[in-house]
Amino acid sequence: MSQTTLGAVTLADKLAAAKNASFALATATTDQKNAALRAIATRLGDASGRILEANELDLANGRENGLSTGLLDRLTLSDARLAGLADAVLQIVALTDPVGEAVRGSALPNGIKITQVRVPFGVVGAIYEARPNVTVDIAALALKSGNAAVLRGGSAAINTNRVLVEVIREALGETGLPEESVQTIDEFGRVGATELMKARGYIDVLIPRGSAELIRTVVTESTVPVIETGAGVVHIVLDESAREDWAADIVRNAKVQRPSVCNAVETLLVHRSAAERVLPSVVTALTEAGVTIHADERASAFAPGAVPVTEEDWATEHMSLDISVKVVDSLDEAIDHIRRYSTQHTEAIITNDLANAERFLAEVDSAVVMVNASTRFTDGGEFGFGAEVGISTQKLHARGPMGLPELTSTKWIVRGSGQIRA
Amino acid sequence: MSQTTLGAVTLADKLAAAKNASFALATATTDQKNAALRAIATRLGDASGRILEANELDLANGRENGLSTGLLDRLTLSDARLAGLADAVLQIVALTDPVGEAVRGSALPNGIKITQVRVPFGVVGAIYEARPNVTVDIAALALKSGNAAVLRGGSAAINTNRVLVEVIREALGETGLPEESVQTIDEFGRVGATELMKARGYIDVLIPRGSAELIRTVVTESTVPVIETGAGVVHIVLDESAREDWAADIVRNAKVQRPSVCNAVETLLVHRSAAERVLPSVVTALTEAGVTIHADERASAFAPGAVPVTEEDWATEHMSLDISVKVVDSLDEAIDHIRRYSTQHTEAIITNDLANAERFLAEVDSAVVMVNASTRFTDGGEFGFGAEVGISTQKLHARGPMGLPELTSTKWIVRGSGQIRA
Repeated sequence: MSQTTLGAVTLADKLAAAKNASFALATATTDQKNAALRAIATRLGDASGRILEANELDLANGRENGLSTGLLDRLTLSDARLAGLADAVLQIVALTDPVGEAVRGSALPNGIKITQVRVPFGVVGAIYEARPNVTVDIAALALKSGNAAVLRGGSAAINTNRVLVEVIREALGETGLPEESVQTIDEFGRVGATELMKARGYIDVLIPRGSAELIRTVVTESTVPVIETGAGVVHIVLDESAREDWAADIVRNAKVQRPSVCNAVETLLVHRSAAERVLPSVVTALTEAGVTIHADERASAFAPGAVPVTEEDWATEHMSLDISVKVVDSLDEAIDHIRRYSTQHTEAIITNDLANAERFLAEVDSAVVMVNASTRFTDGGEFGFGAEVGISTQKLHARGPMGLPELTSTKWIVRGSGQIRA
Repeated sequence: MSQTTLGAVTLADKLAAAKNASFALATATTDQKNAALRAIATRLGDASGRILEANELDLANGRENGLSTGLLDRLTLSDARLAGLADAVLQIVALTDPVGEAVRGSALPNGIKITQVRVPFGVVGAIYEARPNVTVDIAALALKSGNAAVLRGGSAAINTNRVLVEVIREALGETGLPEESVQTIDEFGRVGATELMKARGYIDVLIPRGSAELIRTVVTESTVPVIETGAGVVHIVLDESAREDWAADIVRNAKVQRPSVCNAVETLLVHRSAAERVLPSVVTALTEAGVTIHADERASAFAPGAVPVTEEDWATEHMSLDISVKVVDSLDEAIDHIRRYSTQHTEAIITNDLANAERFLAEVDSAVVMVNASTRFTDGGEFGFGAEVGISTQKLHARGPMGLPELTSTKWIVRGSGQIRA
């Protein structure tokens, strides 16, 4: 660990302090952790003056630095948004504490009892962009699951994050948990992010949240274990037997309800035998909602006003009111297209053919595969997890929507009475 | 993917072929996979002439290159060892196929049914040293769990591995599974290993097996997800109330029964109040078995013939008949020592004090924590998993002994009837 310093406290100091705090957090009771979360929620209201003052400073700097309206909006806090953040923290209080859950166990033939129990990871690192709500969200999720948190937010939110972390630490201190459990390292800039990605022995898991580029950087540069979340080039297949009403409803919902999120559909693959029957009403539903259709040659026959689709479109997460449409000759061609361009987030088929539904579910290798439902249901809240830690697009540890248990590891408890191995 | 070539087949070709084969393997039935494994076991016997001939070539090259006796022994195959390998494959036939297991599921309020099911990772990569048994072992475990395998063994075993993979592929072809499911990339040398570590999109998980140095290299250089296995600086604490007979039996067993493995004890931490009562019989048990004791000043009073322990010893996995011994003033000091030097593999306490036992189990953050049992029990076979995929020392995905289910990921199956999100 190099000695990146700012004033007296080095980055190494902060990492070591978080690790040390994690030992106490690992054995904290659910009651203690919930008391700390309630205190955080209360203080987010009580300290709103201080928080909004720091936020105003970041916003002024942002305007001066020419930040876009969208980025400034994501950066902005208000009394109403703080109340929303406090509510979100209280919702985490209501979640089941995963720590201590006995996952499985048995008695060995020699009388030894073994039990696999959930334990916190230790220290969770997070690298994200200038969205102060993520600071509170990740800290609260980490604390509930018994983890310390080291946070690296976007530099444009540095003042807001500093005060938010101060407030969180005051709440921790007030309720008897170590204040060092939550650390911000924003003041170390890019070097801080780089060192966080290499902090083996200090960071047990690192979660990037933000743009595809940020996630790619973290995944490729980190030597600590990473949970990859996010990017979704999501497909819907309209099979030969697709119901026309379901096709129109589901595709419109999946594209239009919230186009900027990862579970929104990006590409529609239509069986040639369904194109004439189903595509016109799907196209009408989309164009009425203001969607631009990027169509291949065969699809454009049923999509007046469509623009030609490009090779690049197939691999693009538009995150906007744009959709790519292709007519395919077979389910095989649809599955091949998905294998080539999907980010393995969510894919759905609209069909009434049982064999095709089962083939699609078995052969498409994505975190979530669906029959006859909107891809917008890929969501921790919708799945009943109560919280949205993120949606994992990797296959290791967690896949798909992550709840609190995905922020834990396990350990084996072995209880013997003098047994030795023969 | 760069165009590393040897003859006509590039490394990129092999990775793409493995990925393509993985799609068929993912939907293969247990019966098909078991038939392939039985055919592999049979062919290991039938093709013994060809295998041993290739092995003799590797051994001759090894002797010429000055390989140590130990390495030559690990490289050596014989009819008896091939029979052992075939038996190990047949044991994998007997294991429960994890693919398709429904892990959890529920009906959402809107009528959608969600089910999380186990699916293969896809393509498992392995980097290991010149032990031909690992080639068969990893290939068989990967196949049973529905995964393709890309194998990079030690270059000293290149001829043996080539023939073993040939034999495996013949068995696959004979039973109708894709021959491309198992690939060796030994012929690409170091470049092959480097590219394997960077093969995002082709390798779903990479497992290093071998020395601590090999594992460290793979963990730090890989951009594909890695499961870290192995290194064990294992501790046993003799608490104030430790039974003298259990202490002697367990410490001797943990050190002597098989000193070269990762679950053998390396450091003994003795409470000062137990040293005089318990240490002499422990020392006798160890020295009678030929163990060299590396003692700190206070421990050396009870260990005639001990050598002085060094700072380096505390962090060393001896893998030999050596043990480091320290007298500590308290359980806190023991836990602090473990936090500082442990590789978080396995730690045990010998005690009759309930509060201390529970504190140790809760506060020591290792893959396996034990009370009154030999650390040698950290083992997939002993835990009843039937197979030894390795012992994970990381916290992501798998921790401790890994069975077949740890070679799988999951996916969510969502079955709707036209639902859209409000």
